[in-house]
Amino acid sequence: MMKSINSISELYLPAIEKELRSIIAMAYHRDLTEYIYMLEYHLGWEGENAGPHASGKRIRPLLVLLTCAAAGGEWIQALPASAAVELVHNFSLIHDDIQDNSPLRRGRPSIWKKWGVAQAINAGDSMFTLAFMALFRLQETATAGTTIPAMRILQQACLQLTQGQYMDMAYEKRGDLNLQAYWPMVTGKTAALLSACTELGALVAGCTPIVQATYRKFGYLLGLAFQAHDDFLGVWGDAALTGKSTESDLVMGKKSLPVLFGLSQHGLFAQRWSKGPIQPDEVPALVAQLEIEGARIFTEKTAEDLTMQSLASLAEAQPQAEIGDELRDLSLQLLGRKN
Amino acid sequence: MMKSINSISELYLPAIEKELRSIIAMAYHRDLTEYIYMLEYHLGWEGENAGPHASGKRIRPLLVLLTCAAAGGEWIQALPASAAVELVHNFSLIHDDIQDNSPLRRGRPSIWKKWGVAQAINAGDSMFTLAFMALFRLQETATAGTTIPAMRILQQACLQLTQGQYMDMAYEKRGDLNLQAYWPMVTGKTAALLSACTELGALVAGCTPIVQATYRKFGYLLGLAFQAHDDFLGVWGDAALTGKSTESDLVMGKKSLPVLFGLSQHGLFAQRWSKGPIQPDEVPALVAQLEIEGARIFTEKTAEDLTMQSLASLAEAQPQAEIGDELRDLSLQLLGRKN
Repeated sequence: MMKSINSISELYLPAIEKELRSIIAMAYHRDLTEYIYMLEYHLGWEGENAGPHASGKRIRPLLVLLTCAAAGGEWIQALPASAAVELVHNFSLIHDDIQDNSPLRRGRPSIWKKWGVAQAINAGDSMFTLAFMALFRLQETATAGTTIPAMRILQQACLQLTQGQYMDMAYEKRGDLNLQAYWPMVTGKTAALLSACTELGALVAGCTPIVQATYRKFGYLLGLAFQAHDDFLGVWGDAALTGKSTESDLVMGKKSLPVLFGLSQHGLFAQRWSKGPIQPDEVPALVAQLEIEGARIFTEKTAEDLTMQSLASLAEAQPQAEIGDELRDLSLQLLGRKN
Repeated sequence: MMKSINSISELYLPAIEKELRSIIAMAYHRDLTEYIYMLEYHLGWEGENAGPHASGKRIRPLLVLLTCAAAGGEWIQALPASAAVELVHNFSLIHDDIQDNSPLRRGRPSIWKKWGVAQAINAGDSMFTLAFMALFRLQETATAGTTIPAMRILQQACLQLTQGQYMDMAYEKRGDLNLQAYWPMVTGKTAALLSACTELGALVAGCTPIVQATYRKFGYLLGLAFQAHDDFLGVWGDAALTGKSTESDLVMGKKSLPVLFGLSQHGLFAQRWSKGPIQPDEVPALVAQLEIEGARIFTEKTAEDLTMQSLASLAEAQPQAEIGDELRDLSLQLLGRKN
């Protein structure tokens, strides 16, 4: 019988929070209580409605630790890497919220909304710096020679992150996009950091380069699958369909997988899209049109194929039995499936 | 006879540009021509009025290379570190311009003015990432064991940079400040990166920890001296006095050294300051009032004392004769003095 996800969380999550807190503590300074508070607020520890819901699911650090353990390593040795990826993720969210003009993050006012754009940019910058300082602690926990390749992995992921973010924003102004534009963008925005998570876990575990590359591929495909699934929910998910229509990616104008598929069909959907922003009351008809043009089946199938490929890579890496099952469960949970 | 500054520039500056270009090239990607162009534009290589004037003086990378050479090292080995500090400096300028709402940088439209705030935030983030990737190349140029301590030095400087930036922005809203608030702020905003420059140069040269700390102190004090001098110019410099009054730090509301000195006197200057923004036509009288209250002499003397202390640290590090003279010249040039 498989262990439930809860059993891992119970073990790993408090250790992740403790590691994150000790990283933030490195920035403590008596004149900087508000500066620190902004970071603690964003991480879900302080302020109104603080708590696990405000912290997010810590999927990325869990992925680092589980991969390390599945690959036969000591998960505790990977804690600095797990904190680093979570801080990179949160740095990007802080800046994302400014860039997207999003007033809310995990149900609470985003940093720029509370402290203004200038301080929010700086809070993101400091979290970015702290991410690298976090990774540096591998010097103390991991075997010699781990820190330098770990730095290289994280730097490469961060560069790809900024490249994906550039594309995402640049695409907003372009009408000539098709499906080919999708993969480089989501590779940068989502898959780069998830592949860094699994690669870092395998690196700390001391895997051979080939096994490390296989775990990396698992994370990369998981990232693409996750994004395809998320894009599916952005059009056909409960919030998009039955909640406020403003939850729909169509209203947001997001160049998501179903939208780019629809544009590639040069049909009625593409005709309407080219005429300007979609209004909430148009959503039901346009969603139906997208489905007629095949976007729903295409998106579902793409997410499904990527999920299978991702899990095949995981199997190929030959993870330790029990912990490998838990890693598989975490992946399926990320993809919104019970099992 | 001393060599002129030009002779160093002629040797080092092209090598610095070449190193910077090869770092930016690491981000090349066929879908990213505009993304790369933003970075090249900011570094002064592309776009309207591109050229040395648009690139800035490259003081920080020069400081790295000169310190390395003065400490008996091979300056070429320090090129990755010199590129790293310049990229950190430029990352902070890109974000600074957004935070200060400054439409111009080195006489040209700033990135946010040309491409919008969202893309400018991202361009800064990518330059920040590239700075760490640049430093990483010490693996190829410097002796084994240099990269890890170099990373630590740069990370610490970046953290202090964000802390100083926080203070600077937070101070804008506070009326209760005095001179004590000044030093932690300028340590972060200016001295942290300059001390990293000289420490990195000495590290690559393979100095003993004591000599390295002495070079670090030289850079730190140089940074404080530079800021005090720059703050002097912000009130009594030609541009502030005879140019547009909007060049005056008094109109900008900047919590500079003379202003904080004035506030600490609780005199007529402090009374006027507490009443709200200074208008351009009030500048001449307020400048005179600041001088009466002793701010001019205090600021000049502070900059002078710090310069002397900085040069004393340089002498204490016992730099190689000729190159040490050139380092001294560069410092004095930075402080606006002929010799």
